[in-house]
Amino acid sequence: MGRWEPDARERLERAALELFTEHGFAETTVPQITAHAGLTTRTFFRHFADKREVLFADEEDLPTLAARLVAAAPASMSPMEIVATSLDQVAAAQFGGGIERFRARKRIINSDPGLRERELNKVDALSEALRSGFMDRGVDELTASLVAQVTTTVFGTSIGRWLGHHDGDETPFPDLLRDTLESLRRIMDDPGWDTTTAR
Amino acid sequence: MGRWEPDARERLERAALELFTEHGFAETTVPQITAHAGLTTRTFFRHFADKREVLFADEEDLPTLAARLVAAAPASMSPMEIVATSLDQVAAAQFGGGIERFRARKRIINSDPGLRERELNKVDALSEALRSGFMDRGVDELTASLVAQVTTTVFGTSIGRWLGHHDGDETPFPDLLRDTLESLRRIMDDPGWDTTTAR
Repeated sequence: MGRWEPDARERLERAALELFTEHGFAETTVPQITAHAGLTTRTFFRHFADKREVLFADEEDLPTLAARLVAAAPASMSPMEIVATSLDQVAAAQFGGGIERFRARKRIINSDPGLRERELNKVDALSEALRSGFMDRGVDELTASLVAQVTTTVFGTSIGRWLGHHDGDETPFPDLLRDTLESLRRIMDDPGWDTTTAR
Repeated sequence: MGRWEPDARERLERAALELFTEHGFAETTVPQITAHAGLTTRTFFRHFADKREVLFADEEDLPTLAARLVAAAPASMSPMEIVATSLDQVAAAQFGGGIERFRARKRIINSDPGLRERELNKVDALSEALRSGFMDRGVDELTASLVAQVTTTVFGTSIGRWLGHHDGDETPFPDLLRDTLESLRRIMDDPGWDTTTAR
């Protein structure tokens, strides 16, 4: 064990985001990150499996958290009720670190197809955790699957809106979540696409 | 140019699916596929960029088709109307080849994390084509993005239901599409999750 560095993880992450942003993800090495953070490579690998994980480590726990919230909800709650009342808690767990950090992260992910694929995989893992959590409550497979996917759609879309904020527009993330959910409800409520009249 | 093989593409695909199923995707080589099909490697590469493309070549055109249908819809139609009336056409274009072929394909994709990532990417490309198609019609970004994602959710879920059919259950794919869309509408219509009362 090396010297105890209480804020090592945070320093490594900040250093990595800076270097990824400045020089590109592919061009940045782990030794460069640790040098920039004033820490050792050994310390880096105590916190992250590889340099990609610096970008995704926060999301590792998201499927677990989502599954826990679904399991803990009162038996009387419908799947969409659970989602609507849990979104805030998931948001609080996910976005403690301030918006600039997430903007930098998103720019880096979007710059690299491999990182983008990894992100799609993480979203899929979250959706799968929700789906199986709902099925464990006795929800039918079709409903469980649709609610899980709607949830990741609303969550992802809200994150995109939040990160895309212009200066001066300061709508808090929980409000964006609720607004996105309401927008989706309105869209689905459009009487124009009644499939009983569509060919 | 080699000898003209009118059904080469189909033969290569059938041979590849058989070998992937029997020996695994990673273990199967292009020369094995062409030998099994009685064709040359050169012919293979006239039809497919690599062995992964045998599984995904059909889907290449899906974003293009979706964008064309969105652009061609009457100006009076709302995004969800366009989706509801276009699903059948997309389904017809996509699933001409019979269910067993698609079941084999799905089993192979699910067996390999790299193929699964590729599939998630294709779904994302379809969603992006729809989103940008709706925005070209003047639909606001939030609605365009949500409708695009709902569409890929409904489409993907319906495919899953269709491929998971048990013997004797012969619901046609267009009916599954409509039923899935209606189920999602009912889920979103659940009064229990009104966000104005949720914390």
